[in-house]
Amino acid sequence: MSIYIKNAWYVAAWANEVNRDLLKRRILGEPIVLYRKNDGTPVALIDRCAHKLLPLSMGHLAGDNLQCGYHGLEYDCSGACVRVPGQDRIPATAKVRSFPLVERYNAIWIWMGDPAMADPSKIHTVRKIGEPGWSVVDGGYQLHGGDFLNIAENLQDPAHTTYVHVRTIGNPATSEVPVKVEQGDDYVVAYRWSNNVPPPPIDKKNGNFKGLVDRCQYYNYFAPCVSRVDVVTMDAGQEHTEENMDKGLRVYSYKFLTPETESTTHFFWMQVRNFGAGDAKVQAELFAGLNQTFAEDNVIVTAVQREQAATGVRQQTWLSIDAGPSRVRKMLEDMAAAEQA
Amino acid sequence: MSIYIKNAWYVAAWANEVNRDLLKRRILGEPIVLYRKNDGTPVALIDRCAHKLLPLSMGHLAGDNLQCGYHGLEYDCSGACVRVPGQDRIPATAKVRSFPLVERYNAIWIWMGDPAMADPSKIHTVRKIGEPGWSVVDGGYQLHGGDFLNIAENLQDPAHTTYVHVRTIGNPATSEVPVKVEQGDDYVVAYRWSNNVPPPPIDKKNGNFKGLVDRCQYYNYFAPCVSRVDVVTMDAGQEHTEENMDKGLRVYSYKFLTPETESTTHFFWMQVRNFGAGDAKVQAELFAGLNQTFAEDNVIVTAVQREQAATGVRQQTWLSIDAGPSRVRKMLEDMAAAEQA
Amino acid sequence: MSIYIKNAWYVAAWANEVNRDLLKRRILGEPIVLYRKNDGTPVALIDRCAHKLLPLSMGHLAGDNLQCGYHGLEYDCSGACVRVPGQDRIPATAKVRSFPLVERYNAIWIWMGDPAMADPSKIHTVRKIGEPGWSVVDGGYQLHGGDFLNIAENLQDPAHTTYVHVRTIGNPATSEVPVKVEQGDDYVVAYRWSNNVPPPPIDKKNGNFKGLVDRCQYYNYFAPCVSRVDVVTMDAGQEHTEENMDKGLRVYSYKFLTPETESTTHFFWMQVRNFGAGDAKVQAELFAGLNQTFAEDNVIVTAVQREQAATGVRQQTWLSIDAGPSRVRKMLEDMAAAEQA
Repeated sequence: MSIYIKNAWYVAAWANEVNRDLLKRRILGEPIVLYRKNDGTPVALIDRCAHKLLPLSMGHLAGDNLQCGYHGLEYDCSGACVRVPGQDRIPATAKVRSFPLVERYNAIWIWMGDPAMADPSKIHTVRKIGEPGWSVVDGGYQLHGGDFLNIAENLQDPAHTTYVHVRTIGNPATSEVPVKVEQGDDYVVAYRWSNNVPPPPIDKKNGNFKGLVDRCQYYNYFAPCVSRVDVVTMDAGQEHTEENMDKGLRVYSYKFLTPETESTTHFFWMQVRNFGAGDAKVQAELFAGLNQTFAEDNVIVTAVQREQAATGVRQQTWLSIDAGPSRVRKMLEDMAAAEQA
Repeated sequence: MSIYIKNAWYVAAWANEVNRDLLKRRILGEPIVLYRKNDGTPVALIDRCAHKLLPLSMGHLAGDNLQCGYHGLEYDCSGACVRVPGQDRIPATAKVRSFPLVERYNAIWIWMGDPAMADPSKIHTVRKIGEPGWSVVDGGYQLHGGDFLNIAENLQDPAHTTYVHVRTIGNPATSEVPVKVEQGDDYVVAYRWSNNVPPPPIDKKNGNFKGLVDRCQYYNYFAPCVSRVDVVTMDAGQEHTEENMDKGLRVYSYKFLTPETESTTHFFWMQVRNFGAGDAKVQAELFAGLNQTFAEDNVIVTAVQREQAATGVRQQTWLSIDAGPSRVRKMLEDMAAAEQA
Repeated sequence: MSIYIKNAWYVAAWANEVNRDLLKRRILGEPIVLYRKNDGTPVALIDRCAHKLLPLSMGHLAGDNLQCGYHGLEYDCSGACVRVPGQDRIPATAKVRSFPLVERYNAIWIWMGDPAMADPSKIHTVRKIGEPGWSVVDGGYQLHGGDFLNIAENLQDPAHTTYVHVRTIGNPATSEVPVKVEQGDDYVVAYRWSNNVPPPPIDKKNGNFKGLVDRCQYYNYFAPCVSRVDVVTMDAGQEHTEENMDKGLRVYSYKFLTPETESTTHFFWMQVRNFGAGDAKVQAELFAGLNQTFAEDNVIVTAVQREQAATGVRQQTWLSIDAGPSRVRKMLEDMAAAEQA
């Protein structure tokens, strides 16, 4: 059985990656070519000419059409061939698949499943983006060497932070705090509050904390492809109301997972926060720090994927910290099975 | 079923590639070692010692014999082992296969099939080579990333020129001219005349044409491995007699395809022409231009081969321009099937 | 059937390769991590955490324990998990395999089979090491691209020396001398004496020979993984007593073969000799010369392995010189079959 869940919106690219050049990217195992029409509308087609299979990304744009680089066949944005040099009749088989796209949150979202189900209202809602006082770091991209299930488990797993991210966001003080897990129809959330603890180095710097803090982390996974980690760091001793939390440091850290193949994943990331607005240095440091953090995760999931492939086994012992990650995996596996049934 | 046709003469190497060093080359999937005897006769043996299978190309010449680099076994030019250091008796199994060779047209031709059928008169005749007024560019070699059927189709397909060779021999004026196809027992020819057209840049330069020209291209494929493209560019308005054609620019562009494996091909090329004799600059420009042109083809066939392998499909729609290429493929596939039956 | 023989002591590493860093090495197909406790005792564990399979070599030492780099699980030197951050109970499945080790002859020996059978007295005895007048060159290591059976055959095969090692230890004078082969339960020895011959360049230099010499080579193979080549070069005309041999140049050249995979082998080598004691230049030259010699063998066995894999055949003709090598192979194959039965 495939691990792919097709009827969903995935981030195909950041908006600024798609332009009048041809972008080649594999998504859910399919070769895709992305470009924009002259009016800016993004287009996604199968990257393989119906004639001799040459990748269309090796061709050229002819206005809004895509011209194959082998024999000049031209496809319009729906994937219909509209010109065959040397003949008037266009065969019914001369067409390639096109994919529904939506541009939102500086990203191009693609629907790989049944086009009739491609409802833009199903695109995940990113919190606070564009609201006053909230800043965004986006454009983050890494190709991760693990399948999206392993990555989803890793994202839903606070316990690894202390050991994998010791140089960045790791904080030994929180490692022994138990995590609570809740689940809905299409999400799992694991969370923990660590009260009266010293702030981790980055938070201390950004929030100007003088003493101990209360700190929470909510690890939300929204099936099939969105992870949102909410972090609040606030002066210790206050009630944990939304209002008080907004006075502290508050961050929504998004990852959008798009399977490239059954064993690799496009890892897009974005962060929305309520501090350091307009501060280019903070912005640059956040980008660099997060990029480094996720690169640390990539080293781990790549190694785990390799060992799983070598052994045919996923893990050999189960721990309490697996509760949240295991629920996410089961939710995603069930969803794939239901779709394929 | 294999795509290989074994009972045929293939170019194994250019004559100047084969000397007293040992040349290792895979042909129709077989590892071959090539060298010359002291009297200049070329030799081809299986590149694998009968004893421990070490490639003989890792050994040394001992006079006209080839000495294995592991235990010093010596093979003569027939592939018979004639010396085993440390013992007098030479086992009957101590031998390697040798292959019939003929040196002609500055090339070494090899017969990979039944040696009893290796009749040198079956080597394809190259036109005009060595005749007064005709010059040759030869020695062209590229390793192409497609099987020889895909390459044969590409060579027999005038329609790609406009799109693949836009920087070299492409000429949009000819792209809408229909192609006629004729077929014999062991050849296919596709041709078209484009009359009253502007000459392409290279022809204009070499032929000093002042006005419009008539231009023909004959795409001949001689099974299993020779492509000859005849191009004539002549002042427009004349009758298309052989005599008039010889007064224009006339070129025979040869490609000799030698399968390396089921998915890669040695691409040897040679051009015979009736202009620019003795002009080193023309000679160098022709070599560079043709080399670039065929490198452009290699990019295409390599990508097509990769997509065919990924999909298990050859093409998804058929066009009029496929008539000639499809006939060549069928002719070659039938020939391979007959030989293997 | 696997070619591995598990119930045996193999060199896992040179002693100075194993320290407080984590050494990752594949042995008999298993990923192993090696390190030393604070008291210097070497430890070998399976290099794969029982939880999420992350290689433990990507983690860190915590005192004498090995801490996984993903979630901080700590394993003691027996492979038992002794700490799971975030929970008190340690699951029975949280453990990894540990391997018996012995440090001897500057090497770390590992037992990959049934631990109950790991008797240190079964470690092969290295001759003369540490005795007065005898010097050692050790620390030699190469990763060879052939399986250990092909390498064992090569080591047991004097006949290749003339052809493979022409620049180093080759000596045409000996190539026609027949080899005698004897066999015991777990060893094969092939030997030959060449009397009244000129000494090879290296021996002449080291032994100061003025004239002809008698020279013997004993190629001993002790199953499953030790090769010892004894070489004596002595002035010609003496009786071949042990005493007279000790007055000449006498060398024990050891190779310890440890299968990395079914097609690659860790090649550890060591030489014990009775000349050039305390001479750093001789020592350096010997190391360089032997290293070069074994690199020459590696080129050969790597090519042979590749051809065997490509053809599914081991050799196509059998020669007298195969007597010794074939017996070694048979001895080893029988041993593997018996163990697996």
